[in-house]
Amino acid sequence: MTMLEITDISASTCCAPLVREPLPVEEAAALAHTMKALADPARLRLLSIVASSEGHEACVCDLIEPVGLSQPTVSHHLKILTEAGFLSRSKRGTWAYYALVPGALDRLAALFTAV
Amino acid sequence: MTMLEITDISASTCCAPLVREPLPVEEAAALAHTMKALADPARLRLLSIVASSEGHEACVCDLIEPVGLSQPTVSHHLKILTEAGFLSRSKRGTWAYYALVPGALDRLAALFTAV
Repeated sequence: MTMLEITDISASTCCAPLVREPLPVEEAAALAHTMKALADPARLRLLSIVASSEGHEACVCDLIEPVGLSQPTVSHHLKILTEAGFLSRSKRGTWAYYALVPGALDRLAALFTAV
Repeated sequence: MTMLEITDISASTCCAPLVREPLPVEEAAALAHTMKALADPARLRLLSIVASSEGHEACVCDLIEPVGLSQPTVSHHLKILTEAGFLSRSKRGTWAYYALVPGALDRLAALFTAV
């Protein structure tokens, strides 16, 4: 799933919250994919660590110890969160940095908001 | 997972949004379990159909045709949504009715809200 697809999904979900009308088949499939990215304890912790870091950004080098997993496993989880549109990745020097994509969580919140 | 456990989780996540501080291990495990209930297209559609029905309630007899699955499969998905704290179940006559649990989606929305 590309970033563009995620952007499209997010835009549509903002206008059709779950409580207002039945979710169309295509949106349900896309949203289930997004939810799957969050349906893992390690990924939720990684996302919350990045999101609560200064500037909503963290070096992968600072993410390994807190979750207690190997670097390849952490990188795998970060890749899934990036592909789902929650994080963006940039390389500076030796390390990769992950930042919270602005609005990504807001769009999810909007989906579950009744009003 | 019991309803009580879900209530406890929801209460704690409302006060510790994902962007404010790293999610503790136990909360991450519980939230991942909740997310897993939503990480399926059929369950998302069922939840949205119930949520957008009059009175946020629907008879299981009206949920089978829209999702195009067998009754046992629909009942299985509804059970997962009920155990995750999103729906409540009541039996009236021959049929089971499912209702959106008040506040369940709001608590999820609060978790993803930045402010």
